[in-house]
Amino acid sequence: MNAEDVEKIVRVSVRQALAESSIRNEKVVSLKAADVLIEKVTQAAKERGMRIVAAVADAGGNPVAVRRMDGAYVASYDIALNKAYTSAALKMSTAKLSKLAAPGGELYGIQHTNGGKIVVFGGGEPLLFGGEVVGALGVSGGTLKQDTELAEEGKKVWEDILCR
Amino acid sequence: MNAEDVEKIVRVSVRQALAESSIRNEKVVSLKAADVLIEKVTQAAKERGMRIVAAVADAGGNPVAVRRMDGAYVASYDIALNKAYTSAALKMSTAKLSKLAAPGGELYGIQHTNGGKIVVFGGGEPLLFGGEVVGALGVSGGTLKQDTELAEEGKKVWEDILCR
Amino acid sequence: MNAEDVEKIVRVSVRQALAESSIRNEKVVSLKAADVLIEKVTQAAKERGMRIVAAVADAGGNPVAVRRMDGAYVASYDIALNKAYTSAALKMSTAKLSKLAAPGGELYGIQHTNGGKIVVFGGGEPLLFGGEVVGALGVSGGTLKQDTELAEEGKKVWEDILCR
Amino acid sequence: MNAEDVEKIVRVSVRQALAESSIRNEKVVSLKAADVLIEKVTQAAKERGMRIVAAVADAGGNPVAVRRMDGAYVASYDIALNKAYTSAALKMSTAKLSKLAAPGGELYGIQHTNGGKIVVFGGGEPLLFGGEVVGALGVSGGTLKQDTELAEEGKKVWEDILCR
Repeated sequence: MNAEDVEKIVRVSVRQALAESSIRNEKVVSLKAADVLIEKVTQAAKERGMRIVAAVADAGGNPVAVRRMDGAYVASYDIALNKAYTSAALKMSTAKLSKLAAPGGELYGIQHTNGGKIVVFGGGEPLLFGGEVVGALGVSGGTLKQDTELAEEGKKVWEDILCR
Repeated sequence: MNAEDVEKIVRVSVRQALAESSIRNEKVVSLKAADVLIEKVTQAAKERGMRIVAAVADAGGNPVAVRRMDGAYVASYDIALNKAYTSAALKMSTAKLSKLAAPGGELYGIQHTNGGKIVVFGGGEPLLFGGEVVGALGVSGGTLKQDTELAEEGKKVWEDILCR
Repeated sequence: MNAEDVEKIVRVSVRQALAESSIRNEKVVSLKAADVLIEKVTQAAKERGMRIVAAVADAGGNPVAVRRMDGAYVASYDIALNKAYTSAALKMSTAKLSKLAAPGGELYGIQHTNGGKIVVFGGGEPLLFGGEVVGALGVSGGTLKQDTELAEEGKKVWEDILCR
Repeated sequence: MNAEDVEKIVRVSVRQALAESSIRNEKVVSLKAADVLIEKVTQAAKERGMRIVAAVADAGGNPVAVRRMDGAYVASYDIALNKAYTSAALKMSTAKLSKLAAPGGELYGIQHTNGGKIVVFGGGEPLLFGGEVVGALGVSGGTLKQDTELAEEGKKVWEDILCR
């Protein structure tokens, strides 16, 4: 075994080691699951006489699907989508974030740091799979309490039906 | 009656059912009404020695008409227009929103969620017709109190003269 | 009949005349129709091995529903939505607009006038009902030719099934 | 076997079927690979007397790592990052896009559709793994020719060392 052989072996080993760690597997919510989730949430909104926008973003915060019920607030489109973005991008519910972002809270001012995409009131929930955030749900159109509850219910639908 | 007949009937029925629900009727404020409303509001501003911008948006938040009185703040153009957008897009006055958007309020931080178009101080009023928001009025140029009162008066003009 | 009576009659008449013209009826595409249309377009994309984003906006250019197929370009979300906005806001296909907006064309530069929301290549089609634009469809994810054809097919689906 | 049993079986089956398709696996470039890639590209820039910013984004277009060499253009930070975003979000090099986005090209005007994040000149390259885009590299700081070549070299480093 000469120097060239050794060098070759080392080079191949380094390459293999690098290649193995060059890629990271990320699980993200599928369009199919987003469709079902949005349908369920919209149905629940309908039963309560609410008119909402429901949005699902993937783990990277990019939109997967959004639906605006007839008569929902025009402003709710951006709000629902940004709630989904926020919960995916910060891996927490916007209800939890609202406490951290309040004056005196430790993330006070965070709503200014991400190009107007951070929402600091309830209605956004991260979607987990095997302990990891794979996407997020955003709901807007009712009162804060209604939106927050509906998003929490949506999260439960995800946990009960979609990610078992 | 054969299979083809049945198929045809079903196809036609499905088409009719779909077509009926393909369209939703939305009532929106007309340019004529926007003109009258802005004229009345501008007149009222003049009588008080105010120089304002008055704006009317339709139900979708899109501008219908805007007028800037000679000498009004340059900045008031955007503010009046965004007040009208806000009241149409959230179906509430910006005076009411100002309470919800204050620190501790349930929509605290909403001014950051819609691309800089949400105004959280008084001077914007939704315009209703038969219980539905058909547009909104935005006023900017005076003190907060003046703008808020003038927008409220404008709303009254709408209710008393324009939508009887 | 005295002066007061006359005045009253006139006042009432003026009010009625104004009220009649204060409101304009706008027909807009419903969420139900948007759902069906997006589903059909997505299905057609799937059959061709395309991965697209399909979006529907209402007559005011506000989004109704958007769906991103698994694996579609991240950039296609904004592009599809903006194609729908463009076709609703300008009442023409983006394929037609592409000719007008090209260097030498009479709308050259229009892509800069509306806050980055005007798309000047094919894949956006207005949806008509009774001769009026009630919304628009936007498709992005394939080649220009594919997107343009798919949007045109979507328009045909609208005309054949949804607005008969 | 009674109705309840059947119902249970169906419910379980539906859940399993849904869960299987609720998640999509996305391969994305790791920080480790981004570090090596940026280091190699920065080294190559140094050897040519260039001062650049090199950026790596993941498959969703979100930044993984960015490094600005001492003395590089301040503006190059945004440009390198947006080149990486563009190549990830459109799954092509910005050199290729520059031809499509030129006047007369089929994507003419695309630089205006995504909130100012699409770059239409060379220096951005997608990073592939098993035929799929897992991220992208962006380089800015030299002439167009230099940036384009350096990004292409970076892509080669990825292919030769990092993703074998």
